[in-house]
Amino acid sequence: MSNSLCFDLPDWLDVHAAAYVATADVEARMAFVVDAARRNVAEGTGGPFAAGVFEQVSGRLVALGVNLVTTQGLSMLHAEVVALALAQRRLATYDLGAAGLPPHELVTSTEPCTMCLGAIGWSGVSRVVSGATDADARSVGFDEGPKPPDWAQALAARGISVNEGVGRAAARAVLDQYRAQGGHIYNSREGR
Amino acid sequence: MSNSLCFDLPDWLDVHAAAYVATADVEARMAFVVDAARRNVAEGTGGPFAAGVFEQVSGRLVALGVNLVTTQGLSMLHAEVVALALAQRRLATYDLGAAGLPPHELVTSTEPCTMCLGAIGWSGVSRVVSGATDADARSVGFDEGPKPPDWAQALAARGISVNEGVGRAAARAVLDQYRAQGGHIYNSREGR
Repeated sequence: MSNSLCFDLPDWLDVHAAAYVATADVEARMAFVVDAARRNVAEGTGGPFAAGVFEQVSGRLVALGVNLVTTQGLSMLHAEVVALALAQRRLATYDLGAAGLPPHELVTSTEPCTMCLGAIGWSGVSRVVSGATDADARSVGFDEGPKPPDWAQALAARGISVNEGVGRAAARAVLDQYRAQGGHIYNSREGR
Repeated sequence: MSNSLCFDLPDWLDVHAAAYVATADVEARMAFVVDAARRNVAEGTGGPFAAGVFEQVSGRLVALGVNLVTTQGLSMLHAEVVALALAQRRLATYDLGAAGLPPHELVTSTEPCTMCLGAIGWSGVSRVVSGATDADARSVGFDEGPKPPDWAQALAARGISVNEGVGRAAARAVLDQYRAQGGHIYNSREGR
């Protein structure tokens, strides 16, 4: 059956992921993810964002995602959505919190936008670790969408803990660099 | 390059879409979308939700999506995300509001959840038409996520108008039927 929709991952992504060494140190996981965001900008394969799904305790990397909106032509391909989709496909489940699986966490270089906040809620991860803040993203021109101010508490109420501002300075530097080099700030209103 | 992620559409979807006749009547567009939601349940291809991207003025159908979460194993495959992705791929743009395109609208059988609310904001559509309400979805057991109560105004502030409750009774009946026949109410907490 030919009725399918596919998106491609950059060639460099698997190579980058293979260099990761599992660590219990969340700061180190974030540094690895921020490196991927930097590389995504350097390679010209998308926006200045990356995210990874890890086994929460062991730190094993399940999937690494980067923003592919402009290069794959799909507005939903934020790094978080890419990472969660890859992880679910690799583990053959739409619920990363399913019985029998170890707990999973999403490490994202920038605080999730409204779409990714919702996607996190359905994904089954039990923790979110974020780097640059919503304010950092807005300051370079990205609209984060209509997010409730108590988004972290809303996730907590669903059994998902949130650890904000981890490695923020490095994550923020990637956003600043993207803007400084004239990176495309896409959003839903650019055509109007 | 084999690094890609694909999801398949049900065989019946294109046949169903081919039977649609373009109409200026938004209620008729919704009735067509709700039929697709009903069919998705009957065929066992996913949850009780469907959505379509239409040219707002002519009513031409650009893409029809249905919920594929359980059958494709990806929690982000809500009907709205599927419809928007298909439309963007068909029009070869991540911005359905790009210069040179006619305005597009998303007709969704149930009010968008948090994830889909965010996805709508990035998609470039200029109108959302919804059927069953958030309360209807919650009443059959689906968690809609941490959505700001003023979500429609938040979209309006981004140039996206919202028309709620169109064909609500028929859309709601599909949700009730799904529950009555023991349809799986998946959410992020089922594994806990």
